Parts: sequence; structure tokens; C-alpha cells
Amino acid sequence: MTYFKNIGKIAYEGKNSDNPLAFKHYNPNEVVLGKTMEEHLRFAVAYWHTFTASGADPFGAGTAVRAWDHANPMDQAKARVEANFEFLDKIGIPYYCFHDRDIAPEGGSLQETNKNLDVIVDLMEQNMKATGAKLLWNTANMFTNPRFVHGAGTTVNANVYAYAGAQLKKSLEVGKRLGAENYVFWGGREGYDTLLNTDMALELDNLARLFHMAIAYSKEIGFGAQFLIEPKPKEPTKHQYDFDAATTIAFLQKYDLKDYFKLNLEANHATLAGHTFEHEIRVAAINGMLGSLDANQGDLLIGWDTDEFPTDLYSTTLTMYEVLKAGGIGKGGINFDAKVRRGSFEDDDLFLAHIAGMDTYAWGLKAAAKLVEDKVIDNIIDNRYRSFREGIGAEIVSGKATLHTLEKYALENNSIKNESGRQERIKLVLNEVIYSV
Amino acid sequence: MTYFKNIGKIAYEGKNSDNPLAFKHYNPNEVVLGKTMEEHLRFAVAYWHTFTASGADPFGAGTAVRAWDHANPMDQAKARVEANFEFLDKIGIPYYCFHDRDIAPEGGSLQETNKNLDVIVDLMEQNMKATGAKLLWNTANMFTNPRFVHGAGTTVNANVYAYAGAQLKKSLEVGKRLGAENYVFWGGREGYDTLLNTDMALELDNLARLFHMAIAYSKEIGFGAQFLIEPKPKEPTKHQYDFDAATTIAFLQKYDLKDYFKLNLEANHATLAGHTFEHEIRVAAINGMLGSLDANQGDLLIGWDTDEFPTDLYSTTLTMYEVLKAGGIGKGGINFDAKVRRGSFEDDDLFLAHIAGMDTYAWGLKAAAKLVEDKVIDNIIDNRYRSFREGIGAEIVSGKATLHTLEKYALENNSIKNESGRQERIKLVLNEVIYSV
Amino acid sequence: MTYFKNIGKIAYEGKNSDNPLAFKHYNPNEVVLGKTMEEHLRFAVAYWHTFTASGADPFGAGTAVRAWDHANPMDQAKARVEANFEFLDKIGIPYYCFHDRDIAPEGGSLQETNKNLDVIVDLMEQNMKATGAKLLWNTANMFTNPRFVHGAGTTVNANVYAYAGAQLKKSLEVGKRLGAENYVFWGGREGYDTLLNTDMALELDNLARLFHMAIAYSKEIGFGAQFLIEPKPKEPTKHQYDFDAATTIAFLQKYDLKDYFKLNLEANHATLAGHTFEHEIRVAAINGMLGSLDANQGDLLIGWDTDEFPTDLYSTTLTMYEVLKAGGIGKGGINFDAKVRRGSFEDDDLFLAHIAGMDTYAWGLKAAAKLVEDKVIDNIIDNRYRSFREGIGAEIVSGKATLHTLEKYALENNSIKNESGRQERIKLVLNEVIYSV
Amino acid sequence: MTYFKNIGKIAYEGKNSDNPLAFKHYNPNEVVLGKTMEEHLRFAVAYWHTFTASGADPFGAGTAVRAWDHANPMDQAKARVEANFEFLDKIGIPYYCFHDRDIAPEGGSLQETNKNLDVIVDLMEQNMKATGAKLLWNTANMFTNPRFVHGAGTTVNANVYAYAGAQLKKSLEVGKRLGAENYVFWGGREGYDTLLNTDMALELDNLARLFHMAIAYSKEIGFGAQFLIEPKPKEPTKHQYDFDAATTIAFLQKYDLKDYFKLNLEANHATLAGHTFEHEIRVAAINGMLGSLDANQGDLLIGWDTDEFPTDLYSTTLTMYEVLKAGGIGKGGINFDAKVRRGSFEDDDLFLAHIAGMDTYAWGLKAAAKLVEDKVIDNIIDNRYRSFREGIGAEIVSGKATLHTLEKYALENNSIKNESGRQERIKLVLNEVIYSV
Repeated sequence: MTYFKNIGKIAYEGKNSDNPLAFKHYNPNEVVLGKTMEEHLRFAVAYWHTFTASGADPFGAGTAVRAWDHANPMDQAKARVEANFEFLDKIGIPYYCFHDRDIAPEGGSLQETNKNLDVIVDLMEQNMKATGAKLLWNTANMFTNPRFVHGAGTTVNANVYAYAGAQLKKSLEVGKRLGAENYVFWGGREGYDTLLNTDMALELDNLARLFHMAIAYSKEIGFGAQFLIEPKPKEPTKHQYDFDAATTIAFLQKYDLKDYFKLNLEANHATLAGHTFEHEIRVAAINGMLGSLDANQGDLLIGWDTDEFPTDLYSTTLTMYEVLKAGGIGKGGINFDAKVRRGSFEDDDLFLAHIAGMDTYAWGLKAAAKLVEDKVIDNIIDNRYRSFREGIGAEIVSGKATLHTLEKYALENNSIKNESGRQERIKLVLNEVIYSV
Repeated sequence: MTYFKNIGKIAYEGKNSDNPLAFKHYNPNEVVLGKTMEEHLRFAVAYWHTFTASGADPFGAGTAVRAWDHANPMDQAKARVEANFEFLDKIGIPYYCFHDRDIAPEGGSLQETNKNLDVIVDLMEQNMKATGAKLLWNTANMFTNPRFVHGAGTTVNANVYAYAGAQLKKSLEVGKRLGAENYVFWGGREGYDTLLNTDMALELDNLARLFHMAIAYSKEIGFGAQFLIEPKPKEPTKHQYDFDAATTIAFLQKYDLKDYFKLNLEANHATLAGHTFEHEIRVAAINGMLGSLDANQGDLLIGWDTDEFPTDLYSTTLTMYEVLKAGGIGKGGINFDAKVRRGSFEDDDLFLAHIAGMDTYAWGLKAAAKLVEDKVIDNIIDNRYRSFREGIGAEIVSGKATLHTLEKYALENNSIKNESGRQERIKLVLNEVIYSV
Repeated sequence: MTYFKNIGKIAYEGKNSDNPLAFKHYNPNEVVLGKTMEEHLRFAVAYWHTFTASGADPFGAGTAVRAWDHANPMDQAKARVEANFEFLDKIGIPYYCFHDRDIAPEGGSLQETNKNLDVIVDLMEQNMKATGAKLLWNTANMFTNPRFVHGAGTTVNANVYAYAGAQLKKSLEVGKRLGAENYVFWGGREGYDTLLNTDMALELDNLARLFHMAIAYSKEIGFGAQFLIEPKPKEPTKHQYDFDAATTIAFLQKYDLKDYFKLNLEANHATLAGHTFEHEIRVAAINGMLGSLDANQGDLLIGWDTDEFPTDLYSTTLTMYEVLKAGGIGKGGINFDAKVRRGSFEDDDLFLAHIAGMDTYAWGLKAAAKLVEDKVIDNIIDNRYRSFREGIGAEIVSGKATLHTLEKYALENNSIKNESGRQERIKLVLNEVIYSV
Repeated sequence: MTYFKNIGKIAYEGKNSDNPLAFKHYNPNEVVLGKTMEEHLRFAVAYWHTFTASGADPFGAGTAVRAWDHANPMDQAKARVEANFEFLDKIGIPYYCFHDRDIAPEGGSLQETNKNLDVIVDLMEQNMKATGAKLLWNTANMFTNPRFVHGAGTTVNANVYAYAGAQLKKSLEVGKRLGAENYVFWGGREGYDTLLNTDMALELDNLARLFHMAIAYSKEIGFGAQFLIEPKPKEPTKHQYDFDAATTIAFLQKYDLKDYFKLNLEANHATLAGHTFEHEIRVAAINGMLGSLDANQGDLLIGWDTDEFPTDLYSTTLTMYEVLKAGGIGKGGINFDAKVRRGSFEDDDLFLAHIAGMDTYAWGLKAAAKLVEDKVIDNIIDNRYRSFREGIGAEIVSGKATLHTLEKYALENNSIKNESGRQERIKLVLNEVIYSV
């Protein structure tokens, strides 16, 4: 069955196109700094937002009426699979991502749930073979079901922990079977609401234990995906343990997990934690932990995860600049963890929103490439830190300096001349670069 | 000279006292859980807020007219020393804390600045001997002077870095001389305003180098103070590197510094980072990093560090509960890093504000002790996590469980029963406990 | 049928009771400042949170399993009515509040929906007669159904506006029939997501037109309830028109509606708008617009409406102080627009949470009464503003002063002496007052 | 004397210029929608940020060393006047704005302060005649001096109120003498820190009285400037009375002041209040209250007024779109109420920052003009609200509809079809429009 009857393949038509259902900036085969756009960006569709979500919010019912709606949950699940692969093909996105519970309904028992999952994974596998679409990452949803009300890996209830372990095992098997290039852990209920009833130390120890079990099992079954942790603050528990990149790195270091994981960073999670997205990427990169990106944008006047499609060129340019300087996104990709607004409930909006995100990212990639090629930022940095390349500066960087040598130097060099950081000028230059590509 | 002529020693008068210049809750010699209140709380006065600050804010000039005001900077500095020790004596606080630049003015050269500092440190030493007052911690102010505009340990300018090293060396020497029990590093300009002109990796490497130099020099001179890092987000640079406890721990781990440092946590810094104070303390405690506390409170509707005197009993109770459960504050203390409001510009307000803070903390200590003694929280926790003490739960905690054993268990135990977390009830109980002491 | 089998009538047992299912502070017949607690507080249960909500959040399914759950929507609706009146009786709350769609399911057409509503309203009416329970207010839910995706009174679609008018008409009739003492308008979708597709002027004009129609119709049918508008910012539309009390007052003034409305203020809505609850109440009170209160509390580290049960004594004390100083809550009441946490999913939690809220409010009432009786705040205010009761101050207040007379006075009175505002002291006093009752 | 020796007149050089000291977008004589850019934008320099500020922040001393620094306050004040007019001439900005205390130092008495002011105003007048520079607005600084610690028009002290009246009188006279086109009231201390010591009703009544006196006196002396109130939340008092546009309008309506005032809106004040800048402009415009703009931008991850130079093209485009749709900025202008970052402390940065702001605004103007000319937004709005131009929609808008007619219509039109709001698409279009000019 065809779900998007009125929509054909989305093509690149160039800047002057008036066709809303075409790319003006994303040209998958265009070469930028030695790789094609497609290779740089490795876009993915988020199954849950695009095929499972309804537009419901805490104050209102779903608004979207989809051609793949069905009364029967398994029929619904199968229809979504078909819609997904049609969508990937038409929009021209090579990857998709899912949680286990996005793709198949839970049954009355874990056994039945796993059976449902197997049916859908079979269908997925057939479609992947037929279309060439790939799985950027999969994950286990251990937050929606009421059993996880007090956590999964950090639950207060050992039975729930066992269930989570079982679900994770199955999910790793699914990832292996579908060739997932990464496997994501987002701790949807791994956090707490009040310390008054929480044993934080035990909960974190247990979480680390679960991760070690996942590593062991993946080795056992030969699942070679890159493991990723996705930091997020504040939602849904008041205090999520994986608050931001630095917090997550501290956790991984403490529990000897750092060599087995990288980070899956999300723009809106960054801003909820009080950081820019580029900050989080930089923190990950300088710690060797940049894994993959969840592309979206938040509304900084709003205090929750709005998961909007990314349309801000400042953000996509700076994001892609960080990615380029880090040597690329590697096995990761750019997954549109973004949902159409509740008021954008028509099927066309799914395409228009992805086009908006893809074009904005492609535009950002081109602007970032220009920043790199013209050494716009590099020249600023090189000049600004030049004093660390000679004399006392070189001694400091080489680790030879001591407080004695620094004091001696300072007492002989009382006159210090600083230079302007030129932020205002640089921001205007950024405007020029973005709009020159 | 006497600076607070109208004020005598502040005494404990009990709950029913009507005297605003007396304690109703803080009774230094009262024994709580086996230690005196004074031993538990180890209060300190923050020299900068109480003797150096004027009440100026970004929109207005200072409001306070102090008896220790002088036209001549060195006379002013000396008068402040006298005022400090008179204040400590009258309010009954055993400790104080300072930055080098709070206590003595900078001169035209580093040499002259150090000379000024020596004069004041002499005076401090005499007063400490005479009064028995102690130094909880000292630190180097490497953020006020324009030379630190682009950082100190993370500056872009090697000459500035050398200056910072020299200042730090002197500051460690001062700490040793005055018997400081701790030494604090707060990175007032260690952060960045925009990544567009920032080499974060180099800056953090350099900061770690400076810390290693400080460790080496302290060993060399036999300065045995506990080193503390004080996390803070957002102010004054847009992105402070030591954002919060977890971020700071990640940094210390990465650079092999974790064994040499603990954390100096501040209530208002916690809330600016999106956490409760008790969260930050818990994070530090379970990582063995709880060092000392900067006691104040923020206004959560206001987006900057308001440094108000702590008067919220919920916060002081939960703070002291964390401290008690962590085994006490150790070599650290409770430093009132708090300033009287700009409208509280009379000398009396300095006393009234400290009394407010001390009584609120003493009250919190008593409430926390009751929570401990009555096992109010412990019983909740013990019951809530009981499933991890037997069966599959015990296997998980012992590290024996695998995804195989968890799956097997889960498939045989499909029915899961969770229990309410009872937050609303617990919060009412907290009210009762606070008001019962 | 009995829904809360294990729970009897909640009674007042005094401060020393250990019974979690008893009041320690709320004694309905206790006289405070000349009125009983029940008369002061006029508590109401929010039907939607207590009988309709499931504990679902954007990341998880409902957790509560209620005895009144039914597969058939109308059976479910009837069971909820019974549960409501049993609950009101057992908890000892005289009032309840509802939205039309809380109490009865929508049908396939407006006609059918109204029929469903009639059935339930009949049942309500019988129960009210039988039990003496009263309706504090009712309202129309014009935000959940997808038809209101772009607004109701501010919709972009005239058909939707007509529907809203019809729904409002029916809702006013229901209010009249059940003797609602107030009628609330909360503009759940009256706002916008982006100005890029919004005609704000037309939308606000239309909203005012709808209010005028409601006034006219209420007069026509003799519905004497007090009309209330409930301000709220940010949720669910990015910019809700009734952002806060002041914004709502500006709107009512502009459209000649001020004489027909008062405000229904909510604690969590206040904080989301950047205000304290007491600020919003004061603003309403000095404009003669204090109508009713939605009692709950937000988490100020969280950016959305958490609707927690009120347990903060500072807030309830200051709230009740404002209410007492405004002469009482009048025809309004204190409606628990609060939901048990998702983790508090047991039926007992509904009682425990209401007890927490009621005891905290009763405690706040007593503390506020003490503030009033002892003139704690009045004395501060009287003293602080005393200069406006004589001389140039009296001239200013009487309206006789001009810039000429002020200048003349100022030139002759160059020396100005201000006095401390004593905030720190006052906050400690507040602790003492709360404790002492 | 020449203060900016190395800098000549800043000229327009077009998009391809590499000269950082040239405009690439701001061409004052370029005609856009029938007016020159200069006429549209009416740029002004903020005297306080550019000539008085030092780069100090709450954590550090001033960084800027200016050629107009002088030990003697009056010599300093005179030098600043010269620097101002040189700057205006070189940057090509026709207007400037000041507070009385920016331009001349306070003396030991009001008499002496006024004398100082007269000297500087004489100098200003001469320079204005000589250069043709104009005064967009002046205002009285009634917040910096400690006397205003508890407010000016809302002070608790009648002597302070009188002083404020005298200062305001003088300030109006200065405005008249220098031909100020507007006069601004920003209530720097008109708010409160805690309700516990505040009589909000009296304070607001007194503030209104002062405004009425100002109106009367301006009439008396024939000062024809447009009066403007500048809303701002949170700083410096915890609760500023003029929180935002709507709050200010409510105040002006209540006290019969609405006909005498318009609003001076600031971008960063808008975001601190939880609004976009374009929201505040729209609110003002539809109430006939759009007066003038303070152009800057905030950092939405930071909780205070950062007053950055505007470089965000999204914001300047949407701002200028609102201005164009409102019929232009009238007697108001675009005042750069923005300061160079503390790290941008060189004189060149003053030019570079204004160029950044001016080019970004000019670019925004062109993009906004394109939105207007191509009816990009108008077409969306016209189509979206079309149902209100006929049938039941027209009846609603004309005021003929009643709840009866709406109900009748709704019962006959149960089927409602909404359309997507298309936000994602529109945001991509906005990118394209900004890019295309």
C-alpha cells in the first residue's frame, strides 16, 4: 500500500526552486571537503516521532490522522513499517532509528511481547534488504510502561530490573539482526523525583552493572555496534542521572565504562541543561566521546523538550563546524529526533519538516566547511593563543613550568597586555559566512 | 577601635527570646548526635561580603557606609582586619575565609602587591593568635583584575598565566602561614564567552597543569590544607568550566587530580546549575568528594547568583541531613558566602543576617538529627529497596547477574507489583519534623 | 458501590497524632479571626486530577489503576461521579470543580455529547442534593479535542469558534443547574505558537466577543456565578494570551470586561510567569480582581506546570496572608488543582496528598492569622512609609504636590536619610511565626 | 581633541567588502519601501554604554582604558561629550540618548549637581548645532545613587520622592532644551524585593502621581517629546513593576495615563520576561503603544540583562517586520542599548560592535521589506483566517453573533476541518528570505 500518495521522490532543485517539496540546499551527492553531503550528514528518521506519535500533548489529544492508523495494534505496527520505508525512500534518507516499543505493541507477557517484536523485525529485515535502508541505531524503551515508574536500571524493584535486563537482551539481539551501527541507552526513568525516598548510590551502581552486562552480552553475540549514552536533564524525572555530557563522562569514568561508550548528544537536551549544543559536542570531542547526534531544536523561552525540527542556521552551522573539526561523525549520524508541531498535523508536514531540517543542516554544513576552508576560526584561535607556542607559554604547555618559574617570570614581567576577544566582530562575520554559501 | 559600638556578644537565649540580637536556635555548646553544634556546623564569615562589599550592583552604587571606611587603601585594609575579628568575636563564629585581594589592595607591581599582602597577613596572624579565630580557607582572587579578562589558569595569554601562577604561589604561602584548614579554587574567569574564539582543550589542559603545580608546591612547603574546587555555572563567563559537581569530578578524574581535591559546594551555584543543593552534596558524597559548603540561598525566579543569607528551613534541613549521613563536614565548614541585601545597608544588618543564617542552619541541624535518629528517611529507603537484599536483587547487587539470568528470571516472573513512592506524604512529614524541633 | 473501602472519614486529631490518615492542622470548625477554617479555606477537589487523570506523562502511560475504571466510557463517567462524592465526604471537602469533558465523554456529534453531559449532570445533581457537596466552579474544556488545535475563542477557523460558543452555552447552563458559585475561563489553546502565522489582534478581539456573549447569555438565563479568568503562561501554546494577572487585567480593561470578571490565580502558573504566588494575589487584590485560587505548587527548577500538591509552608502562609488582608476569598475558594505524582499511584495517595495540601494550608492560615493579629507586617509597613503621612509626603499622597513644590522641597532638604529594609531579619521572623502556631 | 585617531568615517562598501570598518548592508540612503534606511532605522547611540561604561561586572573591574579618561570628573564629562559627537559623526548615526547622570557627575548638593549638568548641556547644545546630531531621548537616572535604594517614584521615603520629582523636573527641562524627540521613564528601582515590607498599592499610586506631574509640567514648559515607559522585569529589584508591555499597559490604563505614553521596548527585557521581542512589539502595536526600541540581544541561557549588540538576523528581521507592519517607528528610533563584551575592551570594538548591530538591523530591514512586498506572511494570514470574512465568521467579527446563533450553527455543522499551521515550512521560508536580500 502507498501511504503518501501525493508525494513523489524529493529531489534537489537548487536555491532558486519554488517547490516546497524539493531540496534547495541538500544535494546528497555534492562533495564538501572531500566527502559527499550524504556521507557527512548520515541523516536518520526517528521512527517514534514520525510514525508512532499522534500530536498529543499534556493538554490535548492527538491531532494527526494517518493513513497507517489501524484498530488492531499489530496491523498498525505493520502498516507503520511500510510507511517508514516508503518515507525513507521518498525523502532520500538512508537511516532510521527506533525504540523496541515504537515498532511493535506489548503483549500480555514478555514472551508475547517478544513474539510481536519478532514479527515486526522480520518485516523490517525484508524491507531493509529490499530498499537498502539502514538502521543507525536501535534502543529499548524502558520508560513508557508503568512498570518502569520508579526506573529501569535504577529501579527500586529488583523484579523490574530483571525485566529491564531481559528487554535489553532482546533489544541487543534485534540490533545485531538488523545490523544497527549503534545502540543507544537513554535513561528515560533513570533519575529521581526526590532524594527523600532515593538511594542514589545504589541506583547508580546498579545502572553501571546493567551496562557491564550489556557489554558482556554484546561481545558474546558478536554485536559490534557502537554503544551510546544519551544525556538529558530534568525530563521525565526531576533529576535525570545523565544530566549532560560532562555528568555522563564522570559516570562512565567512575565505573570503568568510558572505553565502551560514546555519547549521543541532542540539541534540545543541551539547552535544557543550560548549554549550547556546540558546547556539548566540544566537551564530547575533546574527551574522545563524540558518538552521534539527535538533531532538533528547543525553544529557549520554554522549559521542556520541545523537539522542534532544526531550522536555526546559527545552530546547524556551529554544530557541523564542531563535527568537521572533530573529524566527522564516524559511525554516528544525524537523527531527526524531532516532531512536527501539534498544529502541523497533515502528512505533508512530515515531509516539509524533514526538508526544513535537512536543508538547514546541509546549509550549515556548507557554511561550516567554509569556516574550515577559509580558516576563519582557526586563524582567530592561532593568533589568540600564540603566546603558548614560545617562551614561558611553551614551557607551560610542555609541563616544565612550576610555580617557582612562573613567579620568577611574572616578577620580571609586570606589564601585561591583553587583546580584545572581538566577539561582536566575529558574530557579524558568522552572519556573512552563513549567507555566502 | 571598636566598629560595632552598639552591639555586644550575641548569646543564645532560647526559642522564646524577643531579642533580635540573640540566637534562638544556635546554641554552640548544645550536643546533637554526639557533637556540639559548633563542631557540626563550623561556621565561617566570608570576608569579602561582610567587610569588603559595599552593596553596589550593576545598576547602583554602594549603599553601605561602614565605620571602617578610609580614604587610604592600606588604612582601609587594616581597619577591615580589626572589624573582622571584632565581628567574629561578637557573633561567636570561629572561622573566616578570604581571597587575597579582599584583605589587601593591589599595588603598582606584583612586588608591591605582595608587600601589601604581607603587612595585612602579619596583622591577621596577630589577631588570630589574640582571639583564637581560625581560617577555614583562603583563596586567590584571579578574576577581578582586568588582566584576567580572558581567564587566569585558562587565559589566552601566557604572561597572564605566569602571573596567576605567581599569585597562586603567594596565596598558598599565606594559607600555610595562617594555618588555613582548606584552600579553595574558584575559577572566576575559567570558562568562555563564545566557542568562536576559544580553544577549550588547551584551556582545560592548562588549568590541570596549574593544579598539579599547586599540589607540588604545597607538598614542597608542607602546606597541609585540603584543596577544594568550587563549582559554579554561568557567572561570570557564559560557560564556566566547573559547571557543577559532576562536571568538576569528570575534570578531576581525567587529569588524575581526583585524589588531591574535594568540592566546596554552594547552594546558589547548585540552583543556577539546575540542581538542588542537596543533590550536589549527595553527588559529592557518593564520590567521596564532599569538602566544604558555601551557605547561602538563591532566588529561583532570578537568574543570577543572589547570594542571600540562608533562611529557608527546608533547604538547611536537607543540607544538614546530607552532611550528617556523609559523616559530617570534616575539615570543611559552613561559610556564609552571602551578602546582606543592598537595602539592608546598616551595620546591624550584618549581625541580623548572620543570626538569621546561623539560626536557620542550627534549626536545620536539629531537624536533620531528628530525621537521622528517628530513621525517618532510612526506614523509607530500607523498605523501598528491600528487594535488592535477597534473591535476584541480591544477585544483581553482588555482580553475579547476567542478561541471561535476568531474562530467565523475568520470563518466569511476568507479574510485577510496584509500590507508591509516597512523595506527598513524605513532604508533609518533613514539615512536621522541621517544626517539632 | 464503595471505591475507597479501606478509608474512613478523615478526622482532625491534633498535632501529636501519628495517624497518616488524619488531619493534624486542619480543624474545619476551629475559629480563626472570627471565621471557621472551613469558611476561610473553602477547599475544593479538582475532578480532572483526582478522578479523570491516570498519571500519564509525555514519556509514559498512566500508572494509576482505579476502582472506578471501566471499559465503557459512560459507565466510567458514572463511576467517577460516585467516587467523587464518596471522596468529598470522606476527606471532608465541601466543594468540587470540573471541566465539562472531565465528567462526561464526547459523543459522535455535539448533540450526542450534550446528551452524555445531561446524563451525568443529572447524576451530579442527585448526589449534590444527597450529600450537600457544592460546586465551586465549572468550566468548558476547549483545549483537549483536536478541533481546538488552533484555538477556541481565538481559533483561526470560524466553525471552531461557533462550536466553542455552543459548548460554552451548554456549560453555562450546566453551571446554573448545579448552582456553581463561579464559572472559570482558562484559555487552554488561546495563544499562539508563532507570530509568523498569527493575527493576534483579530484573535484577541474575537476572544473578547466571546466573553461578551457569555455575559449576555448568563444574564439571560439568570446564572449568577462570578466569572473568573485563569491566567497562565507558556503552556500549552508557546505564548498564552492570559500570561499573568497584569496581562489579563490589561485585556479586561481594554475590552470593557473588567467589571464582569475576577481572576482565578494558580500558584504554579504564577511561578511559570516569573512571579511568586503572593505577587499575583496582591496584583489582583489591589485591582479589585481577586476571585479564587488554584492551590498547588511548582518545582522552580522545572520549566513546566508540575501541579504538585502544596506542601511549602512559606508559600501557604504568604498566600493566606494576602487573602486575609484582601478581606477573604469571597465567593471563590481554594481548589486543589494538583495531581499526585506519577509514582504516587495508589488510591491512598489521593487522600494523603489532599491531607498534605489541606494541613499545609490550614497551618499557613494559622500562621497568617498570627501575622495579622500581631501586626507583624503591618507594623513594618506603617513604620516604613510613615513619611507619607505628614508634610511633603502627605501632600504627595493627596495629589497636591507638583514638580515645582517637590523641587522647592528637595532643594531645601538635600540631606536624605534612608533606613534598612531589614529583609534578613524579617525572613527569620517569618520562620518563627510559622513555627509558633 | 580626536579620540578615535585611527578610525575614519565608516562608509557603505557593499556585500563584498573585506573592510571590517565598513558597512556591508547599512546604506543610509538606500530606499526601502519608499523611505531611506536612515529614515526607517533612526539609529541612536546609548551614551552610557559607549562613553560612560568601563566593562566592570559584578566579578571584575573595568577593562576599558579610554582616551577620554580623566581624573577630574567634570573634565571626564566634557571629554565624553567630545568623544560622543566624534563617534556619531564617524559611525554615521544621527541620534544619541542619555541619562542625566551619564553626562555629568553629581555634586555635593542638588544645586551643584544641576550646575554640573548645565555646563555639560551647554556643551551638548553647541555640539549638536555644530554637527547636526539629534537627541532621540533623554531620561533621569533615579536608580544609581544610594538615595534611591528603596525606589524613586515608588520610594518608601517622601524626601526621596521629592528629590526624584526635582530631578525629573530638571531632566524634562534638559530634554526641552536639547530638543529631545522622546522622553523615557525606566523605573530602575521601581519595584520591590519582598512583599513582606512593601505597600505595593501606595507605591503604584505614587508612581502614577509622579507621571501626572511630569505631564503637567511638560505642558507648562511646552516640551513636546513623546513620553515613553520602558518595561523590564527582575532587574535590579526582584520584581520590577513595569514587568513587560502588557503589565505597563494595564498600569497606564488604570491611572488614566494611556493617552500620554507609548512604550520603549527592549529586546533583552522581552526575553527576560519570557517573551520574544516581536511579541512585545506586537502587543504594543495592537494597543497603539509602540513608541521606540532599545536594540540589543540577550543570551537565553543566561538569566540577566546581557545587553549584547544585536547580531541575530532572525530577531532583527522579525523586529523590523513588526515595525513595518505597524507603520514604522514614528518619533521613536532604534537605540543601541548594548554594551561591548568585557573582553572587547579596545576602542575599535565600539565601532565594530555598532557596525555589527547596524548591519544586522539593515539586513533585517531588507528581509522584512521583502516579507512585506512579497506578502509572504500576509498571504499566510489571509488564507488562514479566511473563514472570518464570510458567513458565521463575518457575523462573529461584526459582533452580531450570540451564543444562540453560534449553537444553532454548530449543531448544524458538526463536521469541522482544520488545516495545518505549517510552522516548519514557514521557518525554512524565513531562512530563504533572509538569505535572498
